[in-house]
Amino acid sequence: MRFRCQAKQLQDAVGVAAKAINARPSTPVLEGLLIKTGENGVRLTGSDELTTIETTIDAAILEEGTVALPGRLLSDVVRKLPDADVELRSEEGDPSRRASLRCLGSRTMLIGLNAEDYPSKPQVEEKAGFTVPQEGLRTLVQRTLFSIATDESRPILTGALLEVKEDALVMAALDGFRLAVARLAMSGPNAACCAPLQVVIPGKVLGELQHILPGGEELVSVSISDRFIRFQVGRAMMDARLLEGEFMKYRQILPTEWQTRVVAPVPALAAALDRSSLIARVSKNNLVRLNIGENQLTMSSNAEQNQSQEEVEGVITEGKPLEIAFNERYLNDILKAIDDEEIEMRFQTNVSPCILKPLEGEDYLYLVLPIRVFTAPSR
Amino acid sequence: MRFRCQAKQLQDAVGVAAKAINARPSTPVLEGLLIKTGENGVRLTGSDELTTIETTIDAAILEEGTVALPGRLLSDVVRKLPDADVELRSEEGDPSRRASLRCLGSRTMLIGLNAEDYPSKPQVEEKAGFTVPQEGLRTLVQRTLFSIATDESRPILTGALLEVKEDALVMAALDGFRLAVARLAMSGPNAACCAPLQVVIPGKVLGELQHILPGGEELVSVSISDRFIRFQVGRAMMDARLLEGEFMKYRQILPTEWQTRVVAPVPALAAALDRSSLIARVSKNNLVRLNIGENQLTMSSNAEQNQSQEEVEGVITEGKPLEIAFNERYLNDILKAIDDEEIEMRFQTNVSPCILKPLEGEDYLYLVLPIRVFTAPSR
Repeated sequence: MRFRCQAKQLQDAVGVAAKAINARPSTPVLEGLLIKTGENGVRLTGSDELTTIETTIDAAILEEGTVALPGRLLSDVVRKLPDADVELRSEEGDPSRRASLRCLGSRTMLIGLNAEDYPSKPQVEEKAGFTVPQEGLRTLVQRTLFSIATDESRPILTGALLEVKEDALVMAALDGFRLAVARLAMSGPNAACCAPLQVVIPGKVLGELQHILPGGEELVSVSISDRFIRFQVGRAMMDARLLEGEFMKYRQILPTEWQTRVVAPVPALAAALDRSSLIARVSKNNLVRLNIGENQLTMSSNAEQNQSQEEVEGVITEGKPLEIAFNERYLNDILKAIDDEEIEMRFQTNVSPCILKPLEGEDYLYLVLPIRVFTAPSR
Repeated sequence: MRFRCQAKQLQDAVGVAAKAINARPSTPVLEGLLIKTGENGVRLTGSDELTTIETTIDAAILEEGTVALPGRLLSDVVRKLPDADVELRSEEGDPSRRASLRCLGSRTMLIGLNAEDYPSKPQVEEKAGFTVPQEGLRTLVQRTLFSIATDESRPILTGALLEVKEDALVMAALDGFRLAVARLAMSGPNAACCAPLQVVIPGKVLGELQHILPGGEELVSVSISDRFIRFQVGRAMMDARLLEGEFMKYRQILPTEWQTRVVAPVPALAAALDRSSLIARVSKNNLVRLNIGENQLTMSSNAEQNQSQEEVEGVITEGKPLEIAFNERYLNDILKAIDDEEIEMRFQTNVSPCILKPLEGEDYLYLVLPIRVFTAPSR
């Protein structure tokens, strides 16, 4: 194999494909990136058991072929190349599987892996397909990812549910303590063609997806088959295995009534929570209390006799006063994921879940379980 | 105690004084920052066994007093305060040693340490004093700090020698493998008043000093006594214990002759070394070879059959050809510490130390021991 391309292009492509590589792969060859010449340029593939990421670069191909090179080392090497043309070359059938990378006065010889061992790409038979703006997809992921369960006791909850509806994409994730739902309005024939449909995407896949979306105006094509989902953006393509099983019917657990309602400015709420959390973390109970009075919200925490008390300015309340406590992390995760100026919180009692949502629309909805604090009287 | 000041000023001052605090202090009170009202404002002090850092802020003092507050927690809390006036308050003789920090709607109550346990500041009887521009002092430290010995087998080498001469400050540091000497020209009555003088400053102190120098035009006043050194810049003051004992007479080990001389452009040399080091680190021997021919410098490394070879462009040589090997880290440290466009390297044999220096002047001088590589023929 022998081809020439721009070092910068190679660097970007290696960076994208290497995102799929696991630090401790199940088989040695998956430490490698597969590099293969083809009609449309040179294709780079990285993979673990769950995900395969492929991308293609323009190159002058002087001799066809395939190599598998150690992904991490290759990525480090190409990142340090000068901004010039680079030539990658290997001899077909070389028993020591050497590949050389030349760029100006720099020459690096890497020992490859056995490309024949590299697993072939899953066959994805498209059951449904649609396109979605990158930014919208990224927002869906960012608003739900943190609520995906990290423990494996219920494997289906280590993924997020993606619901393809006629007028929207909805993503939902929950662990035992909170639920996150994000919604992206869709229109046109795109969505209609395959709705309604539900799949569960592993959290790890969504984490990688966030990193390969380059930002900008380009659309992402999403194809869904029985066991796989494919995201395609620009020249990069990611195939990922779906989780099997039925996701929890989360709509059933959403409370429909409320006793206390608070509208609060997000920046003031986030700043108060940030300070309160500092003290809450001293004792590692991570507990912050909200005391809701008439148009008043006081946040407090204490640990080893240190105390924090915060008056949140600009709050409007409705309904009964309430004292309720939360794990600060669950509230912080939410406030960091949204960009509205104001948020609405709805409560029933201090042992029932709280709802956080925008003042208008359904872009997101969070449900958080409170922590029972026995020193606080239940109202 | 009760005073009011700007949150931003308090934040900066706490940040500076807390630099002296050790994560695992020898006595609990040294986890704290001492805060004391005085005539010139409020003084904040942080300390460990080696170093004491003090700084003063302007404040409206409503009631005099002293508290010692947990440094790390205080630093986290004040960093998150809104940009407004803050009031710190404690009751004299309160057995639970509470102090409250109020800023707009935020109120934090911290439990203090026993301020009476706080060690008193060392009495520094000035033996010599001079002033030096911050940038010059910082450069001296930055060019030598990395060569200070980290193992304790020869305690005096865990510090850097500071030589105060009539016309210059010279700082020198060495471990068993390399020597760094940096020189800052001085003029005027400043230097003359106390030269010649030698002290050994602990590496940890120099590391902290780098962090409290705020940058800019201000001069640093340096006072030296028998066992302490004091750095004063703006309203911050750092007192540090000196190392006792005699530093190595390093000038005796500097070779005066050379067989091979190389002048190389620093950016090209650094880029080549950067790439070569990547491969060298794969096998953890960290070894790079330099092959010096006529106006030619080739750098190479190999590990687990991977290889790197780099032609350094724009090199001028004199004398004999040479093949010599180094630990890449020692060369990388040097190339990162200097900002010249070109550097001169002088060699004798491939088992003798190499000298790195500027083409002109004596701003710095490095000596690095090579690694004997038995497969390479000695020339």
